[in-house]
Amino acid sequence: MKDKVAVVGVGCTKFGDLFDLGYEDLICAAAFQAYEDARMDPGEIQAAYLGTYLPGPSGGKAAVSLADALRLYDRPITRVENYCATGTDAFRNACMAIASGTHEIVLVVGAEKLKDRGGRGLPRLGHPLLAKGNTAPGLFALAANRYMHTFGIGRETLAKVAVKNHHNGARNPKAHLRMEVTEEQVLKAPIIAWPFGLFDCCPTTDGAAAAIVCRADLAGRFTDQPVLVKGFGLAVTSGRPYFDPTFDYLGFPSTQQAARRAYEMAGITPHDIDFAEVHDCFTWTEISNTEDLGFCAKGEGGAWAREGRTALTGDKPINPSGGLKSFGHPIGASGVRMIYECVEQLRGRGGERQVKKASLGLAHNVGGPGAVACVIVLGAN
Amino acid sequence: MKDKVAVVGVGCTKFGDLFDLGYEDLICAAAFQAYEDARMDPGEIQAAYLGTYLPGPSGGKAAVSLADALRLYDRPITRVENYCATGTDAFRNACMAIASGTHEIVLVVGAEKLKDRGGRGLPRLGHPLLAKGNTAPGLFALAANRYMHTFGIGRETLAKVAVKNHHNGARNPKAHLRMEVTEEQVLKAPIIAWPFGLFDCCPTTDGAAAAIVCRADLAGRFTDQPVLVKGFGLAVTSGRPYFDPTFDYLGFPSTQQAARRAYEMAGITPHDIDFAEVHDCFTWTEISNTEDLGFCAKGEGGAWAREGRTALTGDKPINPSGGLKSFGHPIGASGVRMIYECVEQLRGRGGERQVKKASLGLAHNVGGPGAVACVIVLGAN
Repeated sequence: MKDKVAVVGVGCTKFGDLFDLGYEDLICAAAFQAYEDARMDPGEIQAAYLGTYLPGPSGGKAAVSLADALRLYDRPITRVENYCATGTDAFRNACMAIASGTHEIVLVVGAEKLKDRGGRGLPRLGHPLLAKGNTAPGLFALAANRYMHTFGIGRETLAKVAVKNHHNGARNPKAHLRMEVTEEQVLKAPIIAWPFGLFDCCPTTDGAAAAIVCRADLAGRFTDQPVLVKGFGLAVTSGRPYFDPTFDYLGFPSTQQAARRAYEMAGITPHDIDFAEVHDCFTWTEISNTEDLGFCAKGEGGAWAREGRTALTGDKPINPSGGLKSFGHPIGASGVRMIYECVEQLRGRGGERQVKKASLGLAHNVGGPGAVACVIVLGAN
Repeated sequence: MKDKVAVVGVGCTKFGDLFDLGYEDLICAAAFQAYEDARMDPGEIQAAYLGTYLPGPSGGKAAVSLADALRLYDRPITRVENYCATGTDAFRNACMAIASGTHEIVLVVGAEKLKDRGGRGLPRLGHPLLAKGNTAPGLFALAANRYMHTFGIGRETLAKVAVKNHHNGARNPKAHLRMEVTEEQVLKAPIIAWPFGLFDCCPTTDGAAAAIVCRADLAGRFTDQPVLVKGFGLAVTSGRPYFDPTFDYLGFPSTQQAARRAYEMAGITPHDIDFAEVHDCFTWTEISNTEDLGFCAKGEGGAWAREGRTALTGDKPINPSGGLKSFGHPIGASGVRMIYECVEQLRGRGGERQVKKASLGLAHNVGGPGAVACVIVLGAN
């Protein structure tokens, strides 16, 4: 798979409370940016993948929504769903469709309207765990508390992640919460589920992102700066990791396995990655993921956050985009949005938030919580 | 793609009102039959695809449901959804994953529990069209009426399809409605949506089916009778074909396009196909699909049904399994169940319903209605 597929165009809507835009509007906005970026006639798209987690409140929201939004008719379009890893998994399948020789040019769109429904965008029918009073913050908090007890870190370490990601997001015109926060603000915010206060949690967001992938040998037709797909990995563990007696609550094996597969395909080690978009649905999740992705040893993620090693100016910038924390988290869109950010950084188009060294970037989703993870490694050449 | 992927094992549950079995029970039953059929240690499965249309009433029903049901952990598992073409599209993506070189052995499961919810298994939130009083029978009936008017066929021609498919299904121990019906019964049954009476409509059904696909050169390890994937095609037209002023209501362009792609990949014409599992959600749909798949010219499908050319003993047997009409239609499972039937027929294991010539079989789903279609061509060698 390595180097067989290239990203030649990306697009992303402003993320936020987009009550004035429908689901199909979001798909259009993201896809047409990607067409323009690739200087491509939309008629060249041979197939498409749509990543959407939740069916819309009015039904539909399947492959046909993408077809109708883009008038992209008479082609294969597949909807992929994989919890919070929906976007990266849609991208992964698009890459395999190309590498299989079936298609040459494929569009990937991740899109989600979360603000039109109650709660944290969770299905009204209710998940059996949520029905028992557990929420996404509550489930991740269980692991965060255990982690903080084991490795002796406090809420002020978590707050460093929020401060950093809001710092980055404030420099990103497309971020949902485009504002800086202070450590004091984070620590004094209302508690959602201990140890998470309001600013430890990503917001509920509408948005869409798009990427056009093609056979690597065709990339020169569309861009002078193709980005190569170096490797990817997906891993599903149990949907009930918290009931698994071997689960230590200190990190997610799904991320460790997905990363191992991606590094192996790319022929690299985690130390070769210059920067990463990492699933920071909660501040603790970024710290733990930094370890699970192999950037540092288990238990060292807190120190990395405190020492600024994951800042824009650090030796391993994490979430230069602002992350889910500041950019927002429309579930199916997030993975494709991360790929958008990686491509922008690898092309040196990060603007105020450009990282210094950008040859090899990584996008990572975790969902479930912890049940599924997907890792994509992208390279500038 | 042609001949790069082989089916080496298949499984299928009894279809029906399976109130005593859960969603995960169905996945287990189908997958373990496929493991046994391929004489395969489940540990050899490297990745999986799950086709499910509706998220369950209790949430979940995603990739993690397959992982937990089969204890198939630490692997990539993707859920694919594509209306009634969900099962065949999951299979198509599994084939591309193998042909891309990413995986060697992949499990595909289609599963659906429709009886646990109200209505025709449709989401409680309601589709915008359904909310206006249209149902699946109502939407297909619009086209059927136009077709019958244009080509001068009556309800007794539709009834031939019901009689044939119930005849075949009565010979299939796994069929939901395992009983014969007479033309008189079909014509006298209560009307659901003119011209469709009760016996012109497929039932609402629970069930699951599984297929194991692998790199064709590895197939000999698992079976003496591998079945080769010759070609496939998916096409999405508009999600609102009935509002398209160019739509003639006489058949579905999505099926025509998906079939053309599949035949082109396989290097065959429709006349080379020996038998087919065709999406007969309603009796008229089979007649129209027979034409859209290119087996006969537009308008000739009714004569084909009347003359018995699509019967088990005809020159182009259609739905030897009993079809959706008799076997049942658990949405995400149906496509994989069709592949199961094709493989059984190609191996000569069709029992009482074995077709005479079985070198090349075809499975076809249409959904939407008409918005999406998927075609898979399978060959005995």
